[in-house]
Amino acid sequence: MEYETVDLDEESGSVVILDQTKLPGKAEIIKLHTATEIWDAIYLLKVRGAPAIGVAAAFGIYVLARQIAEKNPDFNSFYKEFKEQKEYLDSARPTAVNLSWALNRMDEVCSKAHADGKNTAQIVEILGREAREIKAEDIRVCRAIGENGLSLLKPGDGILTHCNAGQLAACKYGTATAPIYLGQERGYHFHVFADETRPLLQGARLTAYELYSSGIDVTLICDNMSAMVMKNGWVNAVFVGCDRVAANGDVANKIGTSVVAAVAKQYGVPFYVCAPTSTIDLNTPTGNEIKIEERPSKEVTEMWYKEPMAPEGIKVFNPAFDVTSHELITAIITEHGIARAPFWESLAEHGSACYNKPTCEA
Amino acid sequence: MEYETVDLDEESGSVVILDQTKLPGKAEIIKLHTATEIWDAIYLLKVRGAPAIGVAAAFGIYVLARQIAEKNPDFNSFYKEFKEQKEYLDSARPTAVNLSWALNRMDEVCSKAHADGKNTAQIVEILGREAREIKAEDIRVCRAIGENGLSLLKPGDGILTHCNAGQLAACKYGTATAPIYLGQERGYHFHVFADETRPLLQGARLTAYELYSSGIDVTLICDNMSAMVMKNGWVNAVFVGCDRVAANGDVANKIGTSVVAAVAKQYGVPFYVCAPTSTIDLNTPTGNEIKIEERPSKEVTEMWYKEPMAPEGIKVFNPAFDVTSHELITAIITEHGIARAPFWESLAEHGSACYNKPTCEA
Repeated sequence: MEYETVDLDEESGSVVILDQTKLPGKAEIIKLHTATEIWDAIYLLKVRGAPAIGVAAAFGIYVLARQIAEKNPDFNSFYKEFKEQKEYLDSARPTAVNLSWALNRMDEVCSKAHADGKNTAQIVEILGREAREIKAEDIRVCRAIGENGLSLLKPGDGILTHCNAGQLAACKYGTATAPIYLGQERGYHFHVFADETRPLLQGARLTAYELYSSGIDVTLICDNMSAMVMKNGWVNAVFVGCDRVAANGDVANKIGTSVVAAVAKQYGVPFYVCAPTSTIDLNTPTGNEIKIEERPSKEVTEMWYKEPMAPEGIKVFNPAFDVTSHELITAIITEHGIARAPFWESLAEHGSACYNKPTCEA
Repeated sequence: MEYETVDLDEESGSVVILDQTKLPGKAEIIKLHTATEIWDAIYLLKVRGAPAIGVAAAFGIYVLARQIAEKNPDFNSFYKEFKEQKEYLDSARPTAVNLSWALNRMDEVCSKAHADGKNTAQIVEILGREAREIKAEDIRVCRAIGENGLSLLKPGDGILTHCNAGQLAACKYGTATAPIYLGQERGYHFHVFADETRPLLQGARLTAYELYSSGIDVTLICDNMSAMVMKNGWVNAVFVGCDRVAANGDVANKIGTSVVAAVAKQYGVPFYVCAPTSTIDLNTPTGNEIKIEERPSKEVTEMWYKEPMAPEGIKVFNPAFDVTSHELITAIITEHGIARAPFWESLAEHGSACYNKPTCEA
């Protein structure tokens, strides 16, 4: 891909993103300066995907910290407004843990620097370093997930993926797509099936776009065609990303993930979840405790369309995520290796080994 | 629903249909007088669904027979033009078995009446009776399927359905929706979940429309949300229609049906197929022998949309149907009862009992 998913423009003090709501028609780069612009970009899915949201939030709160510091050289008044903006950004989306994780990490860095006797200007500089480090970490983590995932594949394999856990959801490689991109670098010639992923069509608009742009053999299908391609023997493995992994291995991810998992089980296809340890939440015992975001009905009935595609006033259930039971998951791939059942044991190991310790201890 | 899917206006001599291409935005009733109008309505899917197409064709050839008889009181010249128009209507959708089945049945009635010494005016009258009988049969078959299906349900049940096997595909009750409508008449207060059914959205545009118009509690979901509603315990049974049932109980139906079946199995929800015996094909041993139609990629990437939703040139796999293995099917419900495994035995019984014998012997 030609553009970075999320970047920082130090000069203008803005978060720079590829507006994903405009894809695949238009690759439009936008700059976000204000808290409202950053909140909107996350809420409206201009930037989406758990890791990318984390990076955008880190850059976002840094950019805001710069503005706040200009008006408030005094730490206490600076910190009061910093906390307010942090809470505000945190409210943009409920399910992905990376949003609050990145913001909490920035907050901790801020408090620590203050405790270390740094002044507000110095603290802002430290926040900038931390935000850039969060992005650099994301790239390292995705590459490591790619290496681990690739060890489960062989050249020529067929791979099915759902939604977009690609470069556009992270910063480079993506999570679920990391084994695909690494395999591509090594001439593996995978055949990828991308679920279109209703209602927001991230598979059609984003995954198909980024894989196709990268020269990977990709075939777009509707979500309800997964059984057919698996029954035809075209799929050797499913790779999906995730928004949050509970301690028992239950996984919250884009709506429809658990449908793919049930179908994969039916046809004996291994089902792999790619999860940076930042998405492992050991404080959430099972998937039952994960709050699932419901979104407006018009995403299903009107959005994208020339005219409404369902009767006016129809009741719509539009959950943005679902929880896939750990029983349907063959393995969870992190930057530290491949976690298998019993997940409450293997995930605890991966979680405690994570070098950026996001929620493992939170 | 306020309107009949297909009806006959004796006074004006026309076929009256609800134009399904305008749904759900507009409930437009149109009258078809000429052969071209009738042909177009079938070809352009203004009337669709195998049983409804059969009825529309029967009414259509009757309406045309009236016009032909006015100009040709002599049977031989009448019959020559009758045959021409019959062939013409039959060419509208050459793959739909009910179309040629209904037209052949009208033709046979015509020949028999002539052999019985009836004059052209009397023959036309007999054709009218036969066409109305074809519609009445369809309603009886659907109602019987409804009674049989209803015996598997209890008041307050949640029901999931895929695509449209409703009134709009037949004349009244539909097939998969027949137990729902009968239950509604008896105050069962079902809660129905309608899969939107990509790519052609028959669930959103048609099923949601007809159930909602009939005052039934219906919730529209995307195809990839079936696992979530089942996991939530909201679904007591799945009811779907079918396009063809093989002798071993494998079922060809709208793409995505086999996904719903795998998910239903995962969550222990019974999966029922509603099949008039006219769709049981004992000459097709298994689902492997059923040819699956592939349709243009732009149905997935462009149709309905304001702009293309996938990168230009992307490869798309767009099968219109899939085959659900008999192993995933709890029961097949026909007008004669409830067929259970082993289906090769139970279906043979149902098939040989069918009174209108359309494809069972074909």
